[in-house]
Amino acid sequence: MATGRTHRPATRSRGIPEATVARLPLYLRALTALSERSVPTVSSEELAAAAGVNSAKLRKDFSYLGSYGTRGVGYDVEYLVYQISRELGLTQDWPVVIVGIGNLGAALANYGGFASRGFRVAALIDADPAMAGKPVAGIPVQHTDDLEKIIQDNGVSIGVIATPAGAAQQVCDRLVGAGVTSILNFAPTVLSVPDGVDVRKVDLSIELQILAFHEQRKAGEEAMESLAEGLPATAKGSTDQGPDGDVPAVMPA
Amino acid sequence: MATGRTHRPATRSRGIPEATVARLPLYLRALTALSERSVPTVSSEELAAAAGVNSAKLRKDFSYLGSYGTRGVGYDVEYLVYQISRELGLTQDWPVVIVGIGNLGAALANYGGFASRGFRVAALIDADPAMAGKPVAGIPVQHTDDLEKIIQDNGVSIGVIATPAGAAQQVCDRLVGAGVTSILNFAPTVLSVPDGVDVRKVDLSIELQILAFHEQRKAGEEAMESLAEGLPATAKGSTDQGPDGDVPAVMPA
Repeated sequence: MATGRTHRPATRSRGIPEATVARLPLYLRALTALSERSVPTVSSEELAAAAGVNSAKLRKDFSYLGSYGTRGVGYDVEYLVYQISRELGLTQDWPVVIVGIGNLGAALANYGGFASRGFRVAALIDADPAMAGKPVAGIPVQHTDDLEKIIQDNGVSIGVIATPAGAAQQVCDRLVGAGVTSILNFAPTVLSVPDGVDVRKVDLSIELQILAFHEQRKAGEEAMESLAEGLPATAKGSTDQGPDGDVPAVMPA
Repeated sequence: MATGRTHRPATRSRGIPEATVARLPLYLRALTALSERSVPTVSSEELAAAAGVNSAKLRKDFSYLGSYGTRGVGYDVEYLVYQISRELGLTQDWPVVIVGIGNLGAALANYGGFASRGFRVAALIDADPAMAGKPVAGIPVQHTDDLEKIIQDNGVSIGVIATPAGAAQQVCDRLVGAGVTSILNFAPTVLSVPDGVDVRKVDLSIELQILAFHEQRKAGEEAMESLAEGLPATAKGSTDQGPDGDVPAVMPA
């Protein structure tokens, strides 16, 4: 399955629920932003708002880490960055290979957010012989023929697939055959992997979808405001709490 | 703030909590994968596992949509795709501009996952005069000088920023000045926006962080397995069969 981990029970190692694991990077992102602004401490409410999570859930998540904050002071930003990074395994070095050095692969090779999280781009691999030897982000591209050797030489356990959809499964099989146990898939296809291998698929449109939800609401609110005060309450859904209720999605936007 | 929406209360339109909104794209992604495999119905447990969410939470999320499934049958995949798409506003056309057509901008312009979700790339904008007129993904790049006109001519409310960090705030200010009310930020910087404008920042390393968590655990488990055989089954927690455990199982890892 490409939509998440399915090969092992979701509540496993050390009893941290999968859903909590998935939120840790969101906390880390928010905390890193605070750290960059030299904010020393943060309340659970502020951090929850910044991470887009409810604060009771945040406190519960952090309790799995043994992190409870200080009443009236909140959480120490730097320490929490360290704690979450350690929990996620980001305090160690993760050599990563990127396979498929088109625009996306090149963008990923240049992406500063990997290195700052412990992900070191150890090698770039492409099937095009004309690419071989060309430096991208300072790293010479290597040919797919050498994939297995590259994986083994670099002790790589995480592979990033940025190939076209048609090539992705074959690349995936070779990565797994060579010992890779985690795959980050940017190719628009569903990959099959054996048990014990984790695949995560990146959908770059997810954040856009969340923006669209709010855009739709904004448009709905504007239209409602200009239209009417007195739409009958029964025309709205039963969960309606605001003026922006069950407005049909066919609002002129 | 770059880490999520912070300009409006977390529970707003129609009473759908922000955290539920953030999960809708994950359900949609999982449902789309099912739909592509022509799976007609899905249980809440299966869908929750595929989306990486606990099933009780999924059922609660869907109750906000008025979607309850059929006991013994589950949810109709196609209908749920439609329902969630409508809720997210994806059944309407969203013209989007991408500013900054380097590797990442070009990759985004070529990214099939936008169009399939209702996001139409209406224009590409770059500050480099040498890029002007060059087609990327079949769309001629336009110069930043014309940004305001492009936004207005195309009725764009969503802007995607894929510029270097140093240019992002200025581009953001111009987009907002021209009427853009949602910003998807790929630039590695924190953007300031006025109230009423939503910013979401994409962190391409988030999925890698989740993979690293599991890689670390696998390494730990291997070490454990080679150390000891006889871990009592009761130490594993009671939720091993599902994704839903908010149960702290306190495994030694």
